[in-house]
Amino acid sequence: MLNKNIETFMACDADFSEATTILFGAPFDSTTSYRPGTRFGSSAIRGESFGIETYSPYQDKDLLDCSIMDSGDLELCFGSTEQALSQIEQHTAEILAANKRPFMLGGEHLVTLGAFRAVTKQYPDIHIIHFDAHADLRDDYLGVQLSHACVLHRCWDLIGDNRIFQFGIRSGDREEFQWGNSHVTTHKFDFESLGHVIKQLEGKPVYFTLDLDVLDPSIFPGTGTPEPGGVSFEELRKAATLVCSQANVVACDVNELSPHYDQSGVSTMVACKIIREMLLAFQQ
Amino acid sequence: MLNKNIETFMACDADFSEATTILFGAPFDSTTSYRPGTRFGSSAIRGESFGIETYSPYQDKDLLDCSIMDSGDLELCFGSTEQALSQIEQHTAEILAANKRPFMLGGEHLVTLGAFRAVTKQYPDIHIIHFDAHADLRDDYLGVQLSHACVLHRCWDLIGDNRIFQFGIRSGDREEFQWGNSHVTTHKFDFESLGHVIKQLEGKPVYFTLDLDVLDPSIFPGTGTPEPGGVSFEELRKAATLVCSQANVVACDVNELSPHYDQSGVSTMVACKIIREMLLAFQQ
Amino acid sequence: MLNKNIETFMACDADFSEATTILFGAPFDSTTSYRPGTRFGSSAIRGESFGIETYSPYQDKDLLDCSIMDSGDLELCFGSTEQALSQIEQHTAEILAANKRPFMLGGEHLVTLGAFRAVTKQYPDIHIIHFDAHADLRDDYLGVQLSHACVLHRCWDLIGDNRIFQFGIRSGDREEFQWGNSHVTTHKFDFESLGHVIKQLEGKPVYFTLDLDVLDPSIFPGTGTPEPGGVSFEELRKAATLVCSQANVVACDVNELSPHYDQSGVSTMVACKIIREMLLAFQQ
Amino acid sequence: MLNKNIETFMACDADFSEATTILFGAPFDSTTSYRPGTRFGSSAIRGESFGIETYSPYQDKDLLDCSIMDSGDLELCFGSTEQALSQIEQHTAEILAANKRPFMLGGEHLVTLGAFRAVTKQYPDIHIIHFDAHADLRDDYLGVQLSHACVLHRCWDLIGDNRIFQFGIRSGDREEFQWGNSHVTTHKFDFESLGHVIKQLEGKPVYFTLDLDVLDPSIFPGTGTPEPGGVSFEELRKAATLVCSQANVVACDVNELSPHYDQSGVSTMVACKIIREMLLAFQQ
Amino acid sequence: MLNKNIETFMACDADFSEATTILFGAPFDSTTSYRPGTRFGSSAIRGESFGIETYSPYQDKDLLDCSIMDSGDLELCFGSTEQALSQIEQHTAEILAANKRPFMLGGEHLVTLGAFRAVTKQYPDIHIIHFDAHADLRDDYLGVQLSHACVLHRCWDLIGDNRIFQFGIRSGDREEFQWGNSHVTTHKFDFESLGHVIKQLEGKPVYFTLDLDVLDPSIFPGTGTPEPGGVSFEELRKAATLVCSQANVVACDVNELSPHYDQSGVSTMVACKIIREMLLAFQQ
Amino acid sequence: MLNKNIETFMACDADFSEATTILFGAPFDSTTSYRPGTRFGSSAIRGESFGIETYSPYQDKDLLDCSIMDSGDLELCFGSTEQALSQIEQHTAEILAANKRPFMLGGEHLVTLGAFRAVTKQYPDIHIIHFDAHADLRDDYLGVQLSHACVLHRCWDLIGDNRIFQFGIRSGDREEFQWGNSHVTTHKFDFESLGHVIKQLEGKPVYFTLDLDVLDPSIFPGTGTPEPGGVSFEELRKAATLVCSQANVVACDVNELSPHYDQSGVSTMVACKIIREMLLAFQQ
Repeated sequence: MLNKNIETFMACDADFSEATTILFGAPFDSTTSYRPGTRFGSSAIRGESFGIETYSPYQDKDLLDCSIMDSGDLELCFGSTEQALSQIEQHTAEILAANKRPFMLGGEHLVTLGAFRAVTKQYPDIHIIHFDAHADLRDDYLGVQLSHACVLHRCWDLIGDNRIFQFGIRSGDREEFQWGNSHVTTHKFDFESLGHVIKQLEGKPVYFTLDLDVLDPSIFPGTGTPEPGGVSFEELRKAATLVCSQANVVACDVNELSPHYDQSGVSTMVACKIIREMLLAFQQ
Repeated sequence: MLNKNIETFMACDADFSEATTILFGAPFDSTTSYRPGTRFGSSAIRGESFGIETYSPYQDKDLLDCSIMDSGDLELCFGSTEQALSQIEQHTAEILAANKRPFMLGGEHLVTLGAFRAVTKQYPDIHIIHFDAHADLRDDYLGVQLSHACVLHRCWDLIGDNRIFQFGIRSGDREEFQWGNSHVTTHKFDFESLGHVIKQLEGKPVYFTLDLDVLDPSIFPGTGTPEPGGVSFEELRKAATLVCSQANVVACDVNELSPHYDQSGVSTMVACKIIREMLLAFQQ
Repeated sequence: MLNKNIETFMACDADFSEATTILFGAPFDSTTSYRPGTRFGSSAIRGESFGIETYSPYQDKDLLDCSIMDSGDLELCFGSTEQALSQIEQHTAEILAANKRPFMLGGEHLVTLGAFRAVTKQYPDIHIIHFDAHADLRDDYLGVQLSHACVLHRCWDLIGDNRIFQFGIRSGDREEFQWGNSHVTTHKFDFESLGHVIKQLEGKPVYFTLDLDVLDPSIFPGTGTPEPGGVSFEELRKAATLVCSQANVVACDVNELSPHYDQSGVSTMVACKIIREMLLAFQQ
Repeated sequence: MLNKNIETFMACDADFSEATTILFGAPFDSTTSYRPGTRFGSSAIRGESFGIETYSPYQDKDLLDCSIMDSGDLELCFGSTEQALSQIEQHTAEILAANKRPFMLGGEHLVTLGAFRAVTKQYPDIHIIHFDAHADLRDDYLGVQLSHACVLHRCWDLIGDNRIFQFGIRSGDREEFQWGNSHVTTHKFDFESLGHVIKQLEGKPVYFTLDLDVLDPSIFPGTGTPEPGGVSFEELRKAATLVCSQANVVACDVNELSPHYDQSGVSTMVACKIIREMLLAFQQ
Repeated sequence: MLNKNIETFMACDADFSEATTILFGAPFDSTTSYRPGTRFGSSAIRGESFGIETYSPYQDKDLLDCSIMDSGDLELCFGSTEQALSQIEQHTAEILAANKRPFMLGGEHLVTLGAFRAVTKQYPDIHIIHFDAHADLRDDYLGVQLSHACVLHRCWDLIGDNRIFQFGIRSGDREEFQWGNSHVTTHKFDFESLGHVIKQLEGKPVYFTLDLDVLDPSIFPGTGTPEPGGVSFEELRKAATLVCSQANVVACDVNELSPHYDQSGVSTMVACKIIREMLLAFQQ
Repeated sequence: MLNKNIETFMACDADFSEATTILFGAPFDSTTSYRPGTRFGSSAIRGESFGIETYSPYQDKDLLDCSIMDSGDLELCFGSTEQALSQIEQHTAEILAANKRPFMLGGEHLVTLGAFRAVTKQYPDIHIIHFDAHADLRDDYLGVQLSHACVLHRCWDLIGDNRIFQFGIRSGDREEFQWGNSHVTTHKFDFESLGHVIKQLEGKPVYFTLDLDVLDPSIFPGTGTPEPGGVSFEELRKAATLVCSQANVVACDVNELSPHYDQSGVSTMVACKIIREMLLAFQQ
């Protein structure tokens, strides 16, 4: 007897009960201001993941030895931001309630807010490690507060000063950087001092949000707001591995892959490989 | 002394006071459910229009003899549908107040609602001629009422039964078609009976909304929801010319060009040529 | 509790026991002689099917009312043709043994041979209706007999003369056409006489194999061997609907979508819509 | 002992002495006003020709039975139009002097002038049959007389009134059409009356120049100035076959393929197939 | 009352009288020998500039604080090089006459010659800083002297030895490098010694010409003659900032973006960001 | 009298008798497991090579001073691996028999096996230097032994332990790496210790096989199995130059360019430049 087609990120086919990490997609991009299309990101990642191996020669670990489940993409509406964020929050809460780690695949960066709302309820002491090209600290963007360009400001609304640590930031307006100076810790351009921050956060629960446009667009062209001058693949691989193996990451997301601008398919592969390394780094 | 760069749809550089038709762009696509990107439509049309001639051998008329102004793109926010619609409504009202014909370039099809709200206030007796692949008659889509998939239903909310005439429709869910049967007139697949409808509307003010995906995707691949089996370029050219020369079109829009899916650039050229023929058909 | 991600062609999520038709993918293209890549066809069709509706205004039927299961893609090796054909044959036989209709999504056209081997065992009296741009009647191609260019000759090996009916053929070498004259019935260029053939086959079991390159490449560019001068979408839609509603189709396949040559995504949509119409036509 | 790589249009590998038709490429596009790139046309046609068959089921003829030579691409400079035209004229004259038919592959349409200069010297009574979307009858374009937009006017300079017959024309400025009315015969939009013109030219030497943008851009997107509303592949195939089999074509060219705008590769295939049919039609 | 659409590089909307720098486009590429299309460069840069911010975290400056005007693209003919160069020279002279800094956006590299002719008249003591992958020092290219491949040789014709300083050069024929040895200063592969040269030129007027293909094609694929092995974005950003802030740049150009080969849009973004940094560096 | 078109890699037009190195293409990719299309690699390299110069400023050498012949592409069948390998072996043997160096352009990496079979017969003491992202050491892949993923294992079958030296490897399954540990020398991630290995192999005949996916996909997206995290162009250029100038390379290949995934054309250019540097490095 045949079964209906099951499709997951490679080797992430554990059952819910046994899984320690739960992948899910949040295909939403309604507030993207430049080039939309990140709604297709999670699905592309899932489909193309089979183009690389489950084994990592960097960490000498294999996804075949992990217990991870991929629950697929949420069915989100377009055009009603608040409704989409609620659906994401509820799904995240369900995973947290079962004592598992949610690993969300965007979608645009605003989806982080949905997941983070659930996380702050479970972990009031939560801190954020944020990799990105853009500060995302605006209070509003063209009059809208629930915008990808404001997402870290919205997270700050929930947790307040000195809880957000940004790395790789190389774009923003003057006001964002000024506001950020007194409310968050922004490391411009690269990951220097990441080790120090991780040490500082020892024992604290961490939400890790990774906007893939932190990479240079030569490495990752498939994104909505490409910003030249970013970090290399090796820099990101090492930094993300460090966070996931050394910090207490209770939830995370990887976002802003826009596969229709990735005609060679390489950006999707970069996303897959970074996700694999993160999943393996969680494995002790 | 040099001047700042002025960029308009070819030959549409009249001053506001002398112009009879005012082009403007509504770069919005936040509710698009499949492939976004129509936000880039109006700008692409403006930039590429110089690839064709101002003269039409079909109508033996020339844009150089017309008085049309292109006021550029509205700066719309993403993520707040109602706010974007208000901006569109206000701009349209300003054009109507000066007794000129608004000609809006989308954007996704929902932008029609913004313009149409202004038009119904000026012309309570307004009727709609609608070319499209999709019925767009849903009451809501995934829980959202302000969606491209509902736009004609929203227009119906404003004017009621027997005022909307659809042509070329070849897609929808079963409920849409059933609802439409008792509220609007839907001509499936082609433009048959268009001449009859135009005659029937003689003397009445008409809003003409043209979703370019009424064309077969072989002719117009650059759109968000390509639906195979559409009309040919010649069929659309003739039908659009007929509407603009024979009906009393007080306002109109052309929407749903998504240029990033138009890698050969041909869809943009198709849009430019249809718009040229419409503008020339208005000229008596 | 969350479930692993299930992904099927839209609305084809029946369980095996209740399903009457079973979709499956055969991602194989090792013998393709010009542009490979049809291995990605079935997966693209599955993923993009949600871009159109489940309801057909042509037939006034809805996939939501059908019992179809999508069992996903076979995991075929590359580089060993015989091994891949065996896997396909075995999967097809399993479906036939349960008294259900196999509906295979290619892959290149050679996959038909795998499925057809199983079908001939179950239905010795089987006939073939074949839509294609190419005759595919060579005895060998560059010394290889198991080649996409020979697939109908290989099927003929199994069933002999006067059992194969070809339509739309517009390419081949001189020898193929000559050989075909005495062994199969070839209707060049279009579907004329299809109705007659269907009547002639009344009561007989039919294998329907549809190579989508029968379409003009303007409509279906995403294929390995585009051949200008093909049929229109409407011609194919009507012909495929006729076969599936009027003939006794016990098994079928749709093949030769090569999505990486389909940058606008339109070819995939064409495939999805034809498959939807075929599935609905099976429904009495 | 191995030989250096010889690459020709499929099956066009006769030696000069035995060949009756000589193919050559003129990779020049310096005067293109919209999208350049036709310089890559002839090379793409040569390279991709192996994607179709040498046999035509339309004419039941085979290139394997013809004596055609492909002498490759001229090495033309960019930036000096007159120098490039001289090189083309000289190459064409060499072919004519050997009593063979030159068959030039563009390049942009201006290359016709180089070949035509040689032809008029050999055949003072020459007439032109011209398929195109554009009239190309301007006297100058932005101050330049040696422009693709003026090429038929430049040919007229050499032969005068009533010797040029245009078909398929659907674009130009008003002045071109007016000038054309008294100097050339322009059949707008299609090939109606082509049979009549061919009869009229019986016994006269004919130069046949085919700008592939006469095709609708859905069929032929890979061109510099796509103009919606063109003829179908079948219409062109029949018309080109008619000219080459019925008229006394002493020289010809096929131009305006710009392969970098042809991402699916289909436009190149269209060019290859039309050229094959023309070459076969020459064969009595 | 509405206004005609004004479109400028982001925030470069000062009036001529108040502006200190005047941007303009020179859309010309007729002498390009490999892949044409830089004619679309300036327009793409203008249109896409809104994808990045006006504020630079590198320099902590904002375009909103600068007085820059964008006068749009010149309307240049194609096919007559000398005529195009004259138009460019005249426009540049007009800007210089008003005591403002011309900032030209190409187009191919030959456009530099037009601007430089005007500059040498105003500043007889002018020197050139030249960033490029190619030496561009040929005396002629395929018999043509006004070619992109000869542009620095043509500039040398005007100013003579020891006035041209090249950086990043990694391609040329043997003769070019040999000729260059005795006439110009060529720093191969990178920007080493740039600081030294700037010091050496202190007080002297400098023309800065930046061919963006000095970048590695992984960072800047959208160009006519991609040459692997180039500098990184950060290397170029620092070098260009150094020139514009430390040298006495009286005129400059940025050229060789060919956006149709930039399908991800990233090359255009790179150009926009470099131009932003240059404009900000001019601001003291 | 005109000649048939000869097309070779730039400047590689020596006659067989005088040539010391013979280029040929092996357009085969039937066992590719992820994205096929390397069959088009050798042809693209040949056609695009004219986009760069024959002179290298790195080595101060010129291809015009070398005696190299390009014998074109083999005509290989698709679907029968063993038959294709035999054709490659035979062609390689013919070159070796004439005491010349074969330089094969793939195609997928399995083609190495065909050439290597011939080489081992001529040079029983042969060693392999292997640059690649992937270990290619599997014993079988999905049940197939003649697979690109097994090619170095198949070479090992012929020569045994301690004769294969791999560099740049960053992907494989756990078993491959483990097997490799006791049979070959694998330098992961980069070229460190290459100089040492070359010294170690002094005087020994070397087969150099270069899979271009050793490069980071930002530099070389046009390949079948892009693997993020690879070496830079400069690293590869230096390493390949070192091997070809310092080791005793009796035969070599460059493989895995898949040009249809290289929409900017940059990957092909990278391949051309690396091949030029290798050919020049052979020249003493």
